Amino acid sequence: MTLYMNLAELLGTRIEQGLYRPGDRLPSVRALSQEHGVSLSTVQQAYRQLEDDGLVEPRPKSGYFVPQARQRPALPMVSRAAQRPVEVSQWDQVLELISTPPGGELVQLGRGIPDIGAPTLKPLLRSLSRLSRRQGIRELSYGSVLGDPGLREQVSRLVLDSGCQIPPEDIVITTGCHEALSTAIRAVCEPGDIVAVDSPSFHGVMQALKGFGMKALELPTDPVSGISLEALELALEQWPIKAIQLTPSCNNPLGYIMPEANKRALLTLAQRYDVAIIEDDIYGELAYKYPRPRTIKSFDEDGRVLLCSSFSKTLAPGLRIGWIAPGRYLQRVLHMKYMSTGMSAQLPQLALAEFIAGGHYEPHLRRMRSQYARGRELMTDWVSQYFPPGTRASQPQGGFMLWVELEAGFDSQRLNRQLLPHKVQIAPGSIFSAAGKYRNCLRMNFATPQAAGIEQAVRRVGESIAELQAEQG
Amino acid sequence: MTLYMNLAELLGTRIEQGLYRPGDRLPSVRALSQEHGVSLSTVQQAYRQLEDDGLVEPRPKSGYFVPQARQRPALPMVSRAAQRPVEVSQWDQVLELISTPPGGELVQLGRGIPDIGAPTLKPLLRSLSRLSRRQGIRELSYGSVLGDPGLREQVSRLVLDSGCQIPPEDIVITTGCHEALSTAIRAVCEPGDIVAVDSPSFHGVMQALKGFGMKALELPTDPVSGISLEALELALEQWPIKAIQLTPSCNNPLGYIMPEANKRALLTLAQRYDVAIIEDDIYGELAYKYPRPRTIKSFDEDGRVLLCSSFSKTLAPGLRIGWIAPGRYLQRVLHMKYMSTGMSAQLPQLALAEFIAGGHYEPHLRRMRSQYARGRELMTDWVSQYFPPGTRASQPQGGFMLWVELEAGFDSQRLNRQLLPHKVQIAPGSIFSAAGKYRNCLRMNFATPQAAGIEQAVRRVGESIAELQAEQG
Repeated sequence: MTLYMNLAELLGTRIEQGLYRPGDRLPSVRALSQEHGVSLSTVQQAYRQLEDDGLVEPRPKSGYFVPQARQRPALPMVSRAAQRPVEVSQWDQVLELISTPPGGELVQLGRGIPDIGAPTLKPLLRSLSRLSRRQGIRELSYGSVLGDPGLREQVSRLVLDSGCQIPPEDIVITTGCHEALSTAIRAVCEPGDIVAVDSPSFHGVMQALKGFGMKALELPTDPVSGISLEALELALEQWPIKAIQLTPSCNNPLGYIMPEANKRALLTLAQRYDVAIIEDDIYGELAYKYPRPRTIKSFDEDGRVLLCSSFSKTLAPGLRIGWIAPGRYLQRVLHMKYMSTGMSAQLPQLALAEFIAGGHYEPHLRRMRSQYARGRELMTDWVSQYFPPGTRASQPQGGFMLWVELEAGFDSQRLNRQLLPHKVQIAPGSIFSAAGKYRNCLRMNFATPQAAGIEQAVRRVGESIAELQAEQG
Repeated sequence: MTLYMNLAELLGTRIEQGLYRPGDRLPSVRALSQEHGVSLSTVQQAYRQLEDDGLVEPRPKSGYFVPQARQRPALPMVSRAAQRPVEVSQWDQVLELISTPPGGELVQLGRGIPDIGAPTLKPLLRSLSRLSRRQGIRELSYGSVLGDPGLREQVSRLVLDSGCQIPPEDIVITTGCHEALSTAIRAVCEPGDIVAVDSPSFHGVMQALKGFGMKALELPTDPVSGISLEALELALEQWPIKAIQLTPSCNNPLGYIMPEANKRALLTLAQRYDVAIIEDDIYGELAYKYPRPRTIKSFDEDGRVLLCSSFSKTLAPGLRIGWIAPGRYLQRVLHMKYMSTGMSAQLPQLALAEFIAGGHYEPHLRRMRSQYARGRELMTDWVSQYFPPGTRASQPQGGFMLWVELEAGFDSQRLNRQLLPHKVQIAPGSIFSAAGKYRNCLRMNFATPQAAGIEQAVRRVGESIAELQAEQG
């Protein structure tokens, strides 16, 4: 971590601990420079970082201040899941969400699409374009079923940041995180098996469980600390669970980061009951705070964690490049990967390897983290402002999704139908549950909050909610 | 069909019917021009086409002649398959074949790699390169789970050539033919189900059956007419077969084209016993004779044929773009596709759509058909010349693979080990059988027979075979 980041984190912690209060003036640049023995420009950089994170605000000629406390909506309730294995439903609603390609008139607040317009992506596009012209055997022919060796080397380097030491030969490149997750599930489970999941949970995984004839056991999940370890232990006691599937870092859709102690405790439970862990880390690198959180995989000593990720959220989903570090299940995963797609597209793998090796990945991530942190502030403000009183919302620690909880009995599928003529779409909460719970919830994307029409779309969502609530009386 | 193609086909038929015999002089260009009322250059074009196809040879100042009959090896025997459902094995050998990326020192005669160096591919690379720079939402974001609408429209146009009328909305783009085949299998069958297959058969499908816990019933297959309909009927009577999976046009590995009457009869059987047909047409467009053969799908009236294909053999496998026309199973296939990869990479889809719409696909196919037809002649000559007497070989009608059968008891896996220090690899026959039959067979690629080192590699294979046979006594 550089000097300015250290200082920014120190000041940030002091603000969050209440040492400086809303409205307080913060120490001057000169005073901090002397106190910490760093240059004036280092202090200025630290303040800019804190400003980006929404923790301080500059006032012309007066210095930096702690902003007035924002009106934050209350957190969602801890989910009360069914606590018995169920067959997954909701395919029709998922299909509705994913059938419309982006780029039309519809404002798709519901989809998990990152900002793909950042200038820091340019070097990747240049590599893609240059490699496309080559007509070489590496670009156009079959590669290894494991994926491009150069890209696996880069992934092996990247995972060091999450505390993992994984050699390139234990990494398999996949067609997006989808393929990583579905090969993981198939490598570990048979039809009829039970998989424990956090709840609400990513619909792609649940639809895979449905497709493979497996059952999901949804566990109560806290919007700050994640899956309930008590409930998990009870479930492991009660049911023949084969695997735990969860997204512990920058969870989708809730945005929490599971505390490190909980991650360790979960691994211990998995060891005691001898079950596999399928860890989805697709948003992990988009944690607003640096350094990024550790993965459960980083504590794993007996290879029971299958770590799944991709570049779909950090770079661009259209590349369809993900990866899996399957631990002891490598051979099974290779077989599943071969039968599902044979191998993944070559060009994006080669271009990505160049992009990362060329040092372009970290600057892009830094930019995106700040942008999404600001997006969270904006979206939270809009929900406070435009949504009916009593609306609850998540406080994401990373990524670009907000989870909104409305009063019991609200129907977010009806909301989507209401929004259709206004060309706005949200993700209804029910697709994040195997059993179709969370009908009173919805998920919204804040990756590009300053794009034209986004604020207006969110406002429209708020108004439609109010209309529907008024109808219900 | 253009005038010159018509004429070339007419002359070709006359030669094949024996109207002109080996060594005969063919009518002069002027005579044919007068006889058919076409220009001199049309006749010249027709002769050039026949020359490319190896049916005529020019002699300076004397005109065109029918070449002396080549020494062709005898055809392989009709396969005698096990005729009971078995669990698929042979994964280790498949893994060995697919783990080595091409482009190294090894001459990979065993892999199904087309010639990716043709200049007719250039427009595709230009499109890819140009689209790569765009940074637009279509190129980089999620598309529809069905695939790019523009590409589906082009595929819908292309399948007209095989007698199919399939609207774009009934086509799903996949990550290679692998994903088309594995979603098809999963859409139709459950674990434990029995799938009837031609034999020898593509290893990718059989490994998918293995992975999904299904059983393969291998049926006797004729090296000229394909799967035995008598054996199939008996099997349908005897076993609860769920689907028939086969590659009827330019079969892999045998290269035959199943006669149209057999295709119709197979469909009638499938109707009578109410089973699905999973038709792999990946090599169909590479039939040496124009027009290409009809698919079974083209006769299908109740949507029971799932037609699977890709651009991996006609253009380049590294693109990973395939497609499936799943008939009545569309909804199931969409679900399987979503859970396996979410969607396929966007850029190659957009570039391909441009390439086909721009009229570049047909010229490329024409070039490849001629090249592969010549490759077949060369490879067949080499096998006659360099392999021990008694060697049998297929007579492919399309594609770029030769199937070679050696005396009973020969071990092609041992041959591969013997070839390793010589940096040559063939595909051992056993991976084309669920039960590991065809150990005395092997498959070789003749896509680029004139590339450096290919003839020498084939010669080396022949020599190693002779050595091993001498050892066996």
